[in-house]
Amino acid sequence: MQSVHTMSAYDEELKYLSKRIAAMGGHAERMVEQAVAALVNADPGLAQKVIRDDAVLDEGQREIDDKAIIIIAKRQPMATDLREIVGAIRISADLERVGDLGKNVAKRVVAVTDGRQPTSLFRGLEALANLALTQLKEVLDVYASRSVEKIGFVRDRDDQIDAMYTSLFRELLTYMMEDPRNITPCTHLLFCAKNIERIGDHATNIAETIYYIVTGEQLPAERPKGDKTDKIGLSETLPVK
Amino acid sequence: MQSVHTMSAYDEELKYLSKRIAAMGGHAERMVEQAVAALVNADPGLAQKVIRDDAVLDEGQREIDDKAIIIIAKRQPMATDLREIVGAIRISADLERVGDLGKNVAKRVVAVTDGRQPTSLFRGLEALANLALTQLKEVLDVYASRSVEKIGFVRDRDDQIDAMYTSLFRELLTYMMEDPRNITPCTHLLFCAKNIERIGDHATNIAETIYYIVTGEQLPAERPKGDKTDKIGLSETLPVK
Repeated sequence: MQSVHTMSAYDEELKYLSKRIAAMGGHAERMVEQAVAALVNADPGLAQKVIRDDAVLDEGQREIDDKAIIIIAKRQPMATDLREIVGAIRISADLERVGDLGKNVAKRVVAVTDGRQPTSLFRGLEALANLALTQLKEVLDVYASRSVEKIGFVRDRDDQIDAMYTSLFRELLTYMMEDPRNITPCTHLLFCAKNIERIGDHATNIAETIYYIVTGEQLPAERPKGDKTDKIGLSETLPVK
Repeated sequence: MQSVHTMSAYDEELKYLSKRIAAMGGHAERMVEQAVAALVNADPGLAQKVIRDDAVLDEGQREIDDKAIIIIAKRQPMATDLREIVGAIRISADLERVGDLGKNVAKRVVAVTDGRQPTSLFRGLEALANLALTQLKEVLDVYASRSVEKIGFVRDRDDQIDAMYTSLFRELLTYMMEDPRNITPCTHLLFCAKNIERIGDHATNIAETIYYIVTGEQLPAERPKGDKTDKIGLSETLPVK
């Protein structure tokens, strides 16, 4: 009886980690959604809420770290269980960073919406954020179901995000060249876009961690992550005329 | 004898982690130094070297993670030893990110130096990088000596870095407004400056982790980290005339 009781308490501990991760994931999604909404609607009150909400993810990561270390030391888990716990540590770190990136978007709301920007400036950012949020949701669904056979979509989505970010980067540079009054708000929007592109990278990291948890292996054929805008030089973006 | 032998093997394991962290720290410093040098001297070959060098830090972090988890499961360490191991996991994650940020600077070298920029554009970035590198070196020295009584300097340095970053941000916006040809290179320089400012944040994280390793407590009176440029709005940066 004693050993059954112990096993079940152990299972509870592992389940608790999964539940906390799922809750952090939902919280991170909402933060990003609301940060972009605050930007598009020039809503500094909502932005302030997002900034405050970030503490929940910091606390979540700290708690998962502490719990995970205690479980490892107490249970000496092997194979799948150990991967499950190490995976929880990694995923919570990625989600905490997603929250930071959402918060950083929220912090720029006042600076971007200082002066009345045409809404077309925000449309590209909104589309990019929707794509990144869809990816994050899909990845969190895979975490909940552990159905890694569906994980192929993640890299395609990441390619889409990179392509959309690159085109948004060019677009914002063009606005800046057209009118010096666009330079400051567009600079902040560039940082916002970069933040959202990086949320896609974290979603991809999470997908890789889930694959590792379930299979014990690395996702095959890893490819370099990240945007390609660092190649955009002066000669490419100067208006041709 | 057996127990003495076991203790000593355990000590060796802990010492190994410390040595690997110190090596990663030195490597990260060099990457950042060389990335900035590649930028200032328009040296794409050196930039390529920095980009390649990043794999060493990725590998270092993976190795420290794996080793740390094995030690925790095998030794069930308590108190100081457990903090030492958890601290190694955290510090290696920060150093891996410093490497990523250095690599990102290196990746922008070609785009920034496309067209001949006046060297004054780089001077501010170089000064910022020197400050961040000094901070990183000091923090790694504290890690080597565990003399946390010296750790007060870290936040002062971080304040200096934030202030210098904010003034560089304004300066780069001004260049962009003066001449549209400056927009693309200065945008990349803004991202480079942001990367370097974040290296300062990681150095501060590392200092906080060292304090936690040595004392078991959080550094008192934590203050929000990060830059203040997100407050710089249109009305503040438009040239007054």
